[in-house]
Amino acid sequence: MKHLISIRDIKKEDILKILEKSEEMEKLLQTNKAIKRLDGKILGTLFFEPSTRTRLSFETAMKRLGGSVIGFTDIKNTSTMKGESLKDTIRVISGYVDIIAIRHPKDGASRLASEYSKVPVINAGDGSNQHPTQTLLDLYTIKREIGKIDGIKICFVGDLKYGRTVHSLCYALSMFKNVEFHFIAPDELKLPREVIAELERKDLTYYEYKDMEFKDDLDIIYMTRIQKERFPDLAEYEKVKGIYKLTKKHILNSKAIIMHPLPRVDEIDESVDNLPQSKYFKQSFYGVPVRMAILDMLLNK
Amino acid sequence: MKHLISIRDIKKEDILKILEKSEEMEKLLQTNKAIKRLDGKILGTLFFEPSTRTRLSFETAMKRLGGSVIGFTDIKNTSTMKGESLKDTIRVISGYVDIIAIRHPKDGASRLASEYSKVPVINAGDGSNQHPTQTLLDLYTIKREIGKIDGIKICFVGDLKYGRTVHSLCYALSMFKNVEFHFIAPDELKLPREVIAELERKDLTYYEYKDMEFKDDLDIIYMTRIQKERFPDLAEYEKVKGIYKLTKKHILNSKAIIMHPLPRVDEIDESVDNLPQSKYFKQSFYGVPVRMAILDMLLNK
Amino acid sequence: MKHLISIRDIKKEDILKILEKSEEMEKLLQTNKAIKRLDGKILGTLFFEPSTRTRLSFETAMKRLGGSVIGFTDIKNTSTMKGESLKDTIRVISGYVDIIAIRHPKDGASRLASEYSKVPVINAGDGSNQHPTQTLLDLYTIKREIGKIDGIKICFVGDLKYGRTVHSLCYALSMFKNVEFHFIAPDELKLPREVIAELERKDLTYYEYKDMEFKDDLDIIYMTRIQKERFPDLAEYEKVKGIYKLTKKHILNSKAIIMHPLPRVDEIDESVDNLPQSKYFKQSFYGVPVRMAILDMLLNK
Repeated sequence: MKHLISIRDIKKEDILKILEKSEEMEKLLQTNKAIKRLDGKILGTLFFEPSTRTRLSFETAMKRLGGSVIGFTDIKNTSTMKGESLKDTIRVISGYVDIIAIRHPKDGASRLASEYSKVPVINAGDGSNQHPTQTLLDLYTIKREIGKIDGIKICFVGDLKYGRTVHSLCYALSMFKNVEFHFIAPDELKLPREVIAELERKDLTYYEYKDMEFKDDLDIIYMTRIQKERFPDLAEYEKVKGIYKLTKKHILNSKAIIMHPLPRVDEIDESVDNLPQSKYFKQSFYGVPVRMAILDMLLNK
Repeated sequence: MKHLISIRDIKKEDILKILEKSEEMEKLLQTNKAIKRLDGKILGTLFFEPSTRTRLSFETAMKRLGGSVIGFTDIKNTSTMKGESLKDTIRVISGYVDIIAIRHPKDGASRLASEYSKVPVINAGDGSNQHPTQTLLDLYTIKREIGKIDGIKICFVGDLKYGRTVHSLCYALSMFKNVEFHFIAPDELKLPREVIAELERKDLTYYEYKDMEFKDDLDIIYMTRIQKERFPDLAEYEKVKGIYKLTKKHILNSKAIIMHPLPRVDEIDESVDNLPQSKYFKQSFYGVPVRMAILDMLLNK
Repeated sequence: MKHLISIRDIKKEDILKILEKSEEMEKLLQTNKAIKRLDGKILGTLFFEPSTRTRLSFETAMKRLGGSVIGFTDIKNTSTMKGESLKDTIRVISGYVDIIAIRHPKDGASRLASEYSKVPVINAGDGSNQHPTQTLLDLYTIKREIGKIDGIKICFVGDLKYGRTVHSLCYALSMFKNVEFHFIAPDELKLPREVIAELERKDLTYYEYKDMEFKDDLDIIYMTRIQKERFPDLAEYEKVKGIYKLTKKHILNSKAIIMHPLPRVDEIDESVDNLPQSKYFKQSFYGVPVRMAILDMLLNK
């Protein structure tokens, strides 16, 4: 593993190694002591579009390891790099830093960057394409909170069509054994055919629904945000909006943990926040040890 | 003291402790050696509106202590956190960092943040409400430059109506003994009734004037910026503008130190800058040891 | 040397010292170990206009030396410092940091800053005036890649009228012995008379051309970007555009190294990038050890 561009590039054994390393990192964090593993190293955060949360999570991970960070937060506000090719920018910046995290509005930008970089490149989201560190922190959350990934029963809710988070996590989970998939979405936002095809190829069990009702034996409910703009017909949106808002009532008999990639708008009622099974803020925190693990592994080969 | 939200939350003994600690920090700075007291710790600077000077002062303080900083400088330029509630942002970021400094355009935002944060929150200014670290650095400047706070004679000049700096400092000084207050302001910008009421409750002596003339026995002249926009009648502004510009002439017979929260526009003539009694740039510098003290005390309880 | 404002302030012996120190820094970088020479020190990067590449190079240099950085990237996005005089901003910030790198749209801003700063000031580009660290990294590239500066034959191509990079490098090279200058430019973008005058005063050999053809014994071809906007007559631009694009064909018989201050747009064909003599990305990398040398020398006098 030289770069981290797509979850589909990574073998299952590498995923397991990252998850193991993440646990090690989480324990290091708990000691509350200054860590010096990446002392003197520099991460370049090249955010060609803003993504404050992802950027801060990467920066935190690097600084927790004793390293430092340079970068930019939005190319729109800079002038120098406009008009320059991505290739050239990467060739220049990879002469400055030890590792790069790139966020770009165009699909495939991260892959291209990795081809011209002298240092490891981590994809921090490129267009609608890939965001592999999100998938890895989702997997880590499952492992930490459920205790296993094989054999889990997971239910995705909301926008399953456009959300790269859902697609990537489905691909990743399809590498594990006996995972059972449930998908709740309106017709307009159903899981794309190619993701379904992948599950079928692996002979995995899946169910599709329109109504938000949960089976009692689920391990995970994975909520996502439904964006109004996705609907060609506003009346359709109004119809689903209400039923896709998770309240205490929906999970009275369920022990499933609740996950969400955040930000949430109103798809999870605030009354759910304090339930012990609500793990979305913890999930966000887990992004730090997972990104620490990835930085450490790519830099200390 | 778990958070620092308002100067009105702090007991006099805590203020004295902060001032003492600030002196310790100033001495540490003078040794010119790398300090490692907050090595490995991270400050999150959440600036929901820009305030470059305050942000840089906080960042300097953290870095002088060996810590590091993540954050954003203006929410308008980020997209991710728009549409997310302040509560959720705080819950996420307080999972990353060890301490937060928040700047927000809305009154009360800092208090709300402190209620949802897992880590200490410092108010770096919320709306017209509070900016307690400014008040503490003002107090520190007085202590360092006059040698005492009890019994000082202080004269505030300019916009005493809208300036939260003036109000907070008046409240803070009212905790000390025998402070004598002088207020010079046009009718439109006089000190609000509730601040006067506080001084009266504490039985403190105060005087109000319209003309900028200074008594010889003042210890401090505290200048503030008058903003044209505050005046409904422009003619009124033109009338006071000239007389509220401090020149050498005004302080020929005075030993009072000159303070100003900065930025100044033209309310202090440049010829005053080099007088030994002009302390406004030193006051700005004192923001660093004071913020170091606050960071250190909140993190090393 | 207290500040670094203009290449014209520096004596040749200081230039040689900086180049020597830069080599030392490059060797330090190659050890791949954390360097602590500026541990605890803070660089203030005051970018009153954006220049991402220059800013990142300075920040990298400071962090490679174990120091840290505070600053702003574009004054348009901040509000606090608008309306404040440059003098006051410098007096405030120089109370926070140990050294300042300033970028400003106005000629002479850096000199003014150095007069009001309590700490060393480095000019990171002010208007069309000076950008001395670019000149020093150009000289360093020549020394490292050619092995000497005395007696080199260099050919500048493109916009020789407005490019401060070219002017400053010409002045700097005129301090060395027997440098031979070649200038290729359209009539509209010829080297200004005052630069030619300087070469004549030093009795140096120079040649001017319109067509892009290279003599076989050149040591360096220094390409620059031609900006369409410079031409009053668009037809004139269209005429020169094509012939000023460097391709493999132009340098078939040449051993000259290719330099470019970047960003390049299309004045160097991509096929040239992989030739061993193409040094423009290395030149950009050399900015790091050179700026490390400058920071170190100004801070460790």
